[in-house]
Amino acid sequence: METPYLTTATGRAALRHCYRATLRDNVMPFWLQHGMDTEHGGFLTALDRDGSVLDTDKSIWFQGRGAWMFATLYLTVERRPEWLAAARSGIEFLRRHALAPDGKMYFTVTRDGRPLRMRRYVFSEAFAAIANAAYARASGDARAAADAERCFATYLRYSFEPGLIPPKVSTDTRPMMGIGPHMIGIATAQELRLHLGDRTVAGRTCTQWIDYSIAQIEQHFMKPAHQALLEVVATDGAIIDHFDGRQLNPGHALEAAWFIMHEGKLRNDQRLIQVGRTILDWMWQRGWDQECGGIFYFRDLRGLPVQEYWHDMKFWWPHCEAIIATHLAWTLTGDERYARWHQQVHDWSFHHFADPERGEWYGYLHRDGRVSVPLKGNMWKGPFHLPRMLWYCGRLLAEYPETTAP
Amino acid sequence: METPYLTTATGRAALRHCYRATLRDNVMPFWLQHGMDTEHGGFLTALDRDGSVLDTDKSIWFQGRGAWMFATLYLTVERRPEWLAAARSGIEFLRRHALAPDGKMYFTVTRDGRPLRMRRYVFSEAFAAIANAAYARASGDARAAADAERCFATYLRYSFEPGLIPPKVSTDTRPMMGIGPHMIGIATAQELRLHLGDRTVAGRTCTQWIDYSIAQIEQHFMKPAHQALLEVVATDGAIIDHFDGRQLNPGHALEAAWFIMHEGKLRNDQRLIQVGRTILDWMWQRGWDQECGGIFYFRDLRGLPVQEYWHDMKFWWPHCEAIIATHLAWTLTGDERYARWHQQVHDWSFHHFADPERGEWYGYLHRDGRVSVPLKGNMWKGPFHLPRMLWYCGRLLAEYPETTAP
Repeated sequence: METPYLTTATGRAALRHCYRATLRDNVMPFWLQHGMDTEHGGFLTALDRDGSVLDTDKSIWFQGRGAWMFATLYLTVERRPEWLAAARSGIEFLRRHALAPDGKMYFTVTRDGRPLRMRRYVFSEAFAAIANAAYARASGDARAAADAERCFATYLRYSFEPGLIPPKVSTDTRPMMGIGPHMIGIATAQELRLHLGDRTVAGRTCTQWIDYSIAQIEQHFMKPAHQALLEVVATDGAIIDHFDGRQLNPGHALEAAWFIMHEGKLRNDQRLIQVGRTILDWMWQRGWDQECGGIFYFRDLRGLPVQEYWHDMKFWWPHCEAIIATHLAWTLTGDERYARWHQQVHDWSFHHFADPERGEWYGYLHRDGRVSVPLKGNMWKGPFHLPRMLWYCGRLLAEYPETTAP
Repeated sequence: METPYLTTATGRAALRHCYRATLRDNVMPFWLQHGMDTEHGGFLTALDRDGSVLDTDKSIWFQGRGAWMFATLYLTVERRPEWLAAARSGIEFLRRHALAPDGKMYFTVTRDGRPLRMRRYVFSEAFAAIANAAYARASGDARAAADAERCFATYLRYSFEPGLIPPKVSTDTRPMMGIGPHMIGIATAQELRLHLGDRTVAGRTCTQWIDYSIAQIEQHFMKPAHQALLEVVATDGAIIDHFDGRQLNPGHALEAAWFIMHEGKLRNDQRLIQVGRTILDWMWQRGWDQECGGIFYFRDLRGLPVQEYWHDMKFWWPHCEAIIATHLAWTLTGDERYARWHQQVHDWSFHHFADPERGEWYGYLHRDGRVSVPLKGNMWKGPFHLPRMLWYCGRLLAEYPETTAP
């Protein structure tokens, strides 16, 4: 790897072609062809290798995530009517079927929208918020803008008002907090601000919510003495020296890293860029598999055995997040190390996850890169992480002076 | 494999030595040395390869499972005071710390017994019931007998009174039932009847509860047209053609098979033996990995990709259940096929799971038999499946006429 892709105009041109072609000619067509429910509306994501439906149950997360992705492509790549229609289909399914009588959103429903599972937490609401925000701007639909704000308000209330989400572990015995609500809070606030302006929701502006969550992450979840970003800590930030408290999720951490670097880029704030870069530096070391390549799913803070026996599998989404994080860090810092890391994870991912015959990516590989299950989607995999990476990296590449066509 | 171990006196003598030595000189000493909490009482099960403690949180399941195992060995193998003391330690920890104010038992507590997690279902109660039943007989402690009965009554009430366990999936939309409560109900009733007599609990004798659950399994969960035992079905027994409904768990099914064959053996009931044997025949074909050996964790009823990406891992406990099921089927039927299967799974298991250097078995292997996590215990692995297999198979071998010493 003498000259990493990102460091030369030729390399960047090759990347630009790769990300653009994979997004437009492979991934989005796969979901448009196989993932749209022409009967009941919305997205079907439980698809086999060839796109055939494995399970008709619908993920509420993916009605929002899919609608966000299609609306975003419509807004930023090309005004294709089928992309706007796909976004509308997800939004309309959410309007008809996502809400439980108590105002919280379900996790899964049947194909025709009857409730199946409600979960304790509120990520359905966060994804519905970004979907509605992007769709409001793409379509001019005023209800979508109001829905986006209301979903984000519900998300914030359940995530940060103590006691609203029933705890899995007794809070009397072991008060703890997770990084998830802060990470998703940052990304959600960024999208609302982008599409609807920096409005005030639940007492703070979007920018203030972002500041709040980044401050919490810096104060409580980043552990310089251990060079690690934790997933779960005590409410005072102390390390919980049990399986759960020691469990690192490098892909999740790299996602947090690029959310924070993205905020630094928007504000031209070197301090924020440095925070994100620090998380990337720490968690790349923790997560990259020196022996087989790729990003481990879980690691233990102290190098002990982790609780999850499938800890060393390679999932598609941490690799998407790692590609974005390294690419963005290179763009912001020019440090060649990030271009090298980017090439490592790009090459490993496109070599092992891609399915040249049937399109899209496999989601779940064994440590050595062999496919574990050949499906292309389920309740957790759909039109989100992979197309978001292809789109985001394409946008970064478009910023280079040699770029002519969008 | 000209003459499987079980078919010759020499082979049986070798097995007898193997099971006895592994139980007495390896597995039980590992737990006695590393797993007893000398400070707060009860069992610590989250142990690393060498027995060092990875997590001090305590599994309530394992206070019962461990106490049952030690009391059972005391009753049936040898009156060792340290085995009775270990059983007492688990029982006393349960008495002090297992019960929540509402009368249900926790799933996990801290080392000193403060509540951590409550789960919806009631398997803690089933394991506490068998522990108390065996301990009552081993110690003559009258409170243990009463506790066993009360725990079983709670188990039965929550398991079979509709609505007491909050459903994970909406029962209005998709009414369904699992095989788990029936399987564990059978094993729990068998232990209570063995130690405390065939008493009436929650309106039925232990034998009647066993009949009830076997009938439910035959009527609703066995699918002759598919040659499969299902884990979850609709309340009318219909196949639920979604990920969850199609997901087969061969190890779980083989455990059910031997519970039912064991009942047939006790009653000398050829019909029951045939039911268990049928499940074994079906699920061995579904579960045995022709390519790498060992028992797959999950399979799909229709051969489709399963939802769980770690579906092809090899866990210790399905192998323990497969060793018992094949051994018992050979004992009851004399069909050499079972002796061959027994040897296949015995050899694969002792070759891949055993840790000759540090004792006990690893719990979690990759498909090809390589170790995934080297720990010896956690909230789901402790002194139960492996020692129960060694003990149960030792008891079966003791029934042969050539056996002299117990």
